Amino acid sequence: MITEPLFTLTAGPVQPSAETVRALATPIYDQFDPYFLEVYETTTEKLRVAMGVTDPPLIMHGEAVLGLEAAAASLIASDDVVLNLASGIYGKGYGYWAARYCRELLEIEVPYNQVIDPASVEAMFQERPDIAVVAVVHSETPSGTLNPVAEIAAICAQHGALLIVDAVSSFGAVEVDFEGWPADLVVVGPQKALGGPPGLSLMYLSDKAWAKIEANPAAPTASMLSISDWRDAHRADVKFPFTPSVTEIYALTSTVEQYLREGPEAAWARHAKVAAATRAGILGLGLELWPVSEEICSPALTALKLPAGATGGAVRAHCREHFGVMISGGYGELTESLLRIGHMGPTAHPIYAAVSIAAVGQTLSDLGVTVQVGAGVEAAMASASAVSS
Amino acid sequence: MITEPLFTLTAGPVQPSAETVRALATPIYDQFDPYFLEVYETTTEKLRVAMGVTDPPLIMHGEAVLGLEAAAASLIASDDVVLNLASGIYGKGYGYWAARYCRELLEIEVPYNQVIDPASVEAMFQERPDIAVVAVVHSETPSGTLNPVAEIAAICAQHGALLIVDAVSSFGAVEVDFEGWPADLVVVGPQKALGGPPGLSLMYLSDKAWAKIEANPAAPTASMLSISDWRDAHRADVKFPFTPSVTEIYALTSTVEQYLREGPEAAWARHAKVAAATRAGILGLGLELWPVSEEICSPALTALKLPAGATGGAVRAHCREHFGVMISGGYGELTESLLRIGHMGPTAHPIYAAVSIAAVGQTLSDLGVTVQVGAGVEAAMASASAVSS
Amino acid sequence: MITEPLFTLTAGPVQPSAETVRALATPIYDQFDPYFLEVYETTTEKLRVAMGVTDPPLIMHGEAVLGLEAAAASLIASDDVVLNLASGIYGKGYGYWAARYCRELLEIEVPYNQVIDPASVEAMFQERPDIAVVAVVHSETPSGTLNPVAEIAAICAQHGALLIVDAVSSFGAVEVDFEGWPADLVVVGPQKALGGPPGLSLMYLSDKAWAKIEANPAAPTASMLSISDWRDAHRADVKFPFTPSVTEIYALTSTVEQYLREGPEAAWARHAKVAAATRAGILGLGLELWPVSEEICSPALTALKLPAGATGGAVRAHCREHFGVMISGGYGELTESLLRIGHMGPTAHPIYAAVSIAAVGQTLSDLGVTVQVGAGVEAAMASASAVSS
Amino acid sequence: MITEPLFTLTAGPVQPSAETVRALATPIYDQFDPYFLEVYETTTEKLRVAMGVTDPPLIMHGEAVLGLEAAAASLIASDDVVLNLASGIYGKGYGYWAARYCRELLEIEVPYNQVIDPASVEAMFQERPDIAVVAVVHSETPSGTLNPVAEIAAICAQHGALLIVDAVSSFGAVEVDFEGWPADLVVVGPQKALGGPPGLSLMYLSDKAWAKIEANPAAPTASMLSISDWRDAHRADVKFPFTPSVTEIYALTSTVEQYLREGPEAAWARHAKVAAATRAGILGLGLELWPVSEEICSPALTALKLPAGATGGAVRAHCREHFGVMISGGYGELTESLLRIGHMGPTAHPIYAAVSIAAVGQTLSDLGVTVQVGAGVEAAMASASAVSS
Repeated sequence: MITEPLFTLTAGPVQPSAETVRALATPIYDQFDPYFLEVYETTTEKLRVAMGVTDPPLIMHGEAVLGLEAAAASLIASDDVVLNLASGIYGKGYGYWAARYCRELLEIEVPYNQVIDPASVEAMFQERPDIAVVAVVHSETPSGTLNPVAEIAAICAQHGALLIVDAVSSFGAVEVDFEGWPADLVVVGPQKALGGPPGLSLMYLSDKAWAKIEANPAAPTASMLSISDWRDAHRADVKFPFTPSVTEIYALTSTVEQYLREGPEAAWARHAKVAAATRAGILGLGLELWPVSEEICSPALTALKLPAGATGGAVRAHCREHFGVMISGGYGELTESLLRIGHMGPTAHPIYAAVSIAAVGQTLSDLGVTVQVGAGVEAAMASASAVSS
Repeated sequence: MITEPLFTLTAGPVQPSAETVRALATPIYDQFDPYFLEVYETTTEKLRVAMGVTDPPLIMHGEAVLGLEAAAASLIASDDVVLNLASGIYGKGYGYWAARYCRELLEIEVPYNQVIDPASVEAMFQERPDIAVVAVVHSETPSGTLNPVAEIAAICAQHGALLIVDAVSSFGAVEVDFEGWPADLVVVGPQKALGGPPGLSLMYLSDKAWAKIEANPAAPTASMLSISDWRDAHRADVKFPFTPSVTEIYALTSTVEQYLREGPEAAWARHAKVAAATRAGILGLGLELWPVSEEICSPALTALKLPAGATGGAVRAHCREHFGVMISGGYGELTESLLRIGHMGPTAHPIYAAVSIAAVGQTLSDLGVTVQVGAGVEAAMASASAVSS
Repeated sequence: MITEPLFTLTAGPVQPSAETVRALATPIYDQFDPYFLEVYETTTEKLRVAMGVTDPPLIMHGEAVLGLEAAAASLIASDDVVLNLASGIYGKGYGYWAARYCRELLEIEVPYNQVIDPASVEAMFQERPDIAVVAVVHSETPSGTLNPVAEIAAICAQHGALLIVDAVSSFGAVEVDFEGWPADLVVVGPQKALGGPPGLSLMYLSDKAWAKIEANPAAPTASMLSISDWRDAHRADVKFPFTPSVTEIYALTSTVEQYLREGPEAAWARHAKVAAATRAGILGLGLELWPVSEEICSPALTALKLPAGATGGAVRAHCREHFGVMISGGYGELTESLLRIGHMGPTAHPIYAAVSIAAVGQTLSDLGVTVQVGAGVEAAMASASAVSS
Repeated sequence: MITEPLFTLTAGPVQPSAETVRALATPIYDQFDPYFLEVYETTTEKLRVAMGVTDPPLIMHGEAVLGLEAAAASLIASDDVVLNLASGIYGKGYGYWAARYCRELLEIEVPYNQVIDPASVEAMFQERPDIAVVAVVHSETPSGTLNPVAEIAAICAQHGALLIVDAVSSFGAVEVDFEGWPADLVVVGPQKALGGPPGLSLMYLSDKAWAKIEANPAAPTASMLSISDWRDAHRADVKFPFTPSVTEIYALTSTVEQYLREGPEAAWARHAKVAAATRAGILGLGLELWPVSEEICSPALTALKLPAGATGGAVRAHCREHFGVMISGGYGELTESLLRIGHMGPTAHPIYAAVSIAAVGQTLSDLGVTVQVGAGVEAAMASASAVSS
């Protein structure tokens, strides 16, 4: 029997707070029980406040990929021209979904250690003013980068295109300005910076998005992929299309409460601090970040290049087995060449940078790679010093 | 703030055992953590044993409707003739999904307080030997009835048609003979007789079903609706298509362990006993069962006709508010004319018949309906007497 | 392996609410952690409000017998004359502790199905004006009776004697008027009408009690039995004499919060209602209550006489094994001749009277005793009818 | 509201494993419920195996100080000469209890950064062959030292004296050879190297100890302080003297299972490894250990001298507030001059040395003390290197 890990510092799901674990231990109640109906309605309201938006957000009952696939299926009509922005594996992947539903897929792709240049988006609009929908990933989890969505959103708005944003791993770690950017359909994951279980998709839709979906005859209804089915499901007097994931809702309400209690700005600052500490630690070890510059690094997780002499699988296995610390490898074609250290939600505290840097550093050392373990941890902690901050 | 219910005796989700609640309180770990990979693989193996089947079953990460919709989308090809068997609202509803994917939909429909007559299925095959797929609901949850799937399955097998079975609320409460019937694609829900949370679909597929799906060019892939994507996902050396619902898996492994520890036959006997006690109690109260005969009643839940002078909503609200007991109303068009009392999983013990009959009986009495509360509970308990059994 | 019970309807510990179980799942933190210090201080404050007293109560870290023994050891000085009031096994037992510490022990003893007559206490004071301390049990758990402590307390106050009250199973089920009676040293148990775990003693002391303890050279200090050691321990700036029971405190704070959220009067009314329903049910079954009259019955639990043909052990075992319902037998010499049904805290709802009466009734019937199961439950439910109340 | 700590690396209670937290979430059941009786009996048996002793150990239902006080009260007779061995605050304190019960108290006291020299014990026996009982602390928690109990025990045995051992914080972290030393009355705490809650005393008694207690007319009975009352209480057919602490027993059974699953030798090795890493880390920071040599350091926790320029309170507060890490200060007169870092039970893994050294190091740096944070963590991790071990 394999033992439970001591630390989950991965790209997500991330380890929950003690308070979230307690919330998970609530008995399962019937979906129509007045207690559960109230929990569901107040959870939606808390989430609305947490998102800083006007109308109630919508919860879909499957992992964030459900929300992302449903967004493509619902929002993209068969005669749409879609611009997909690919600065990483998730962004690239979204194009495959978009292509299923649209007339024509355009794409701007950059190397996966870079982010999208807003100017390139503007240029594309100049060339193709018929773009109806743009899709972008905010925090590109496989690369540890953060796209400049605010700038991109402004360009889309100017050209009258709707914007789909994958904010799965960014929400909670950094500002997601749903209405201000503006974005039209944003998918958030509860298992990243909120620190909950992964079985839900949290959805923001603008009025324009709702109008476009309603006008789209191919938008799914009476289906797992339907967004429309759930539009009013948060209201206690409206029946759920199907049984919601009761336990996931208990956890969600707890994690959003914790987020609001702390305050979004404080949470973002905490993520920024641990991200800076982690980057400092990696550089201190003598290793390199995967993104081309610190400016484009995501506050949710940090990707680093594996040095010669170590493969991702060996590093992760040793780190988990000897130090109890679970980290992530690269994703897809980057599996063996990158490591990714998550610092989201309950682990977005500087002391976890000491854990990850010490564990990764000593692992590499154990595997024969020369790194400066002490210098790494010292740099991480100095970055997080209460005095300097 | 609404208080938590004392008893959840509904059509499901049902109240969990204390052991299941403890399992829910496990920290969320990364999907690739070796501990979780082992949990996932052993859960699949335990589920295989619990199902009594040869090959590992498959877990889809959304409530049972996901599995049911995915079954239609994957198994039914565009030139198939499908026979849908409708003896209730769920059975009727499946026809709508089937119709999306098939060339022609045939249907046998009976009043919703009856079950399908196997002879009618045989007759339909005589008329239409081109039927490729048949769909049936085992325990028709909205009606509290149990279709004779063994007989129907034998007919389908004889005629070379594949059989889709909705065993969402029957598995665990009564024998589901996956390979023996035989069935080809069966969907089981963890939130009914297993007593877990509702966020998963548990899937059995026969070799024929797999072959048909692989031959179906329209079967979803790279989609939430894809069954194929998850075919080998239980193997620790195969990556998940997307993040599985970690907490739901913890609960599933616990509920299946509990089921195996007790033994399937003992669990079925327990459900039969509480169902008989509940029916005796309802008749003792002076009320009528909804199904036309006791023989066709489901062991998972009991549907009764509301007497004159009481509406479903008023009864349920009073029962929940004054006695803390949550029961279900009718479903769809039967919302106000039926009540449904669940006795699944952890509540499939005769003492819960005393709870439901006492609570429903006193509620009706409080609302001005003449019922024999004492006679009802006495009949329920006598039915469950240790001496008589 | 023996299965977990479905219902715990005993003389206590009683089954906890779901909310209390969640509170138990809090990680153990260091006793000096600021989080725990705050929990401890606020728990004391909430308990003070729940008790309706002026000064912070005191928590001793062992089951209620610790508080009771410590009360005798601390409050009773070597030249004291003590009057012990024995209307049951617990009251009788307290005399043995009192006798260890006092110069002379007087006792008023009544049959254990009766309660103390205040006039007999007045008469004793007339005879022995030198009585310094009186001891009485409020809810005599082994007998299911409730002593008239208000009247007794007034007499003690008039004669200048201090009053020790065992309110272990009464607090939360009925008013305990600490300062109004007045009482001087009262011990409350968290595992009865509050529905928590049993590892603490909750202590109220009047100023007179503190003064007497401080003047008592034999009062324990630097000992598990010391009350004084803990006098200021609730203050975050005062060190604990030894490590407090961290988990028990988590549960206490939760149960007291639940009690205050409901409101003491509502909780007392709920206990009165379920107690009346249970008594009605027992009489309806055709059985007899153990106390000589309903007026003296405790609202926390109900004791009944076992009919001929059944022994306590057989009834309890059958009830637990066949119906999953755990009840209590008699205590001490009453082990085989009484049954006791608890209805405290989370089980102080009328529906639990249906459970206990149905389970006990059917058990007796199974064992060959003639009882009216239906009439019993009907009477219990009618007593609890929302209409009649 | 103060937030929950991220890390509890104190002298105990220590942070529990996730598995222990789950066990805490078990509903409270009645003490006489067959499920609980079985849990209690099997817990005692598991503890017997974990202790490696012949007869069932005994559980007392209060924090370890209860067991220690009860040991003095029961084992020490009024005409006994007792030798108390004081190498720290706990050892010194035990003398005060012993003095209450014995005819004459002898004491060997050494500076609290040293341990007892067995030769001094032998010398004392030469001088005073009438010593009947010797008391010693194994792991002196306030000092972080480990007394050579094996050697001391052999001397006691040779001279026919009984030996009381405080093994509260040593059991589970290092071998406690109950029968082999031999010892006569040993008290173990569940909240240290087992990682449970603190509300129990786990007691080993030799046959000689039982005989001496039975012959001692002053040994407490019918009291919280009585050991005898509980002698057979683990047997399902023997009634408990009073209600045991149900929840604490659930946690105990879980922690002992975890200990046995890992294996005692593996657990001791793990504690030795993290202790060595922590000491290396402290020296690497440029700080000094409190014990005079590494050889006498306890594997359960490490005490270090505070450097000039920092007080214990300030260091602990900063470390907790800025890094979420709770550590302990010195105890009693050493409160402000020492820090103590616990590495017991679930935190006895080398990665926690990185946490404590990084947190303490950066805290000191933030407070203006010059330390080598990087060198400290590097030394700790190098000590724990998988390669070197």
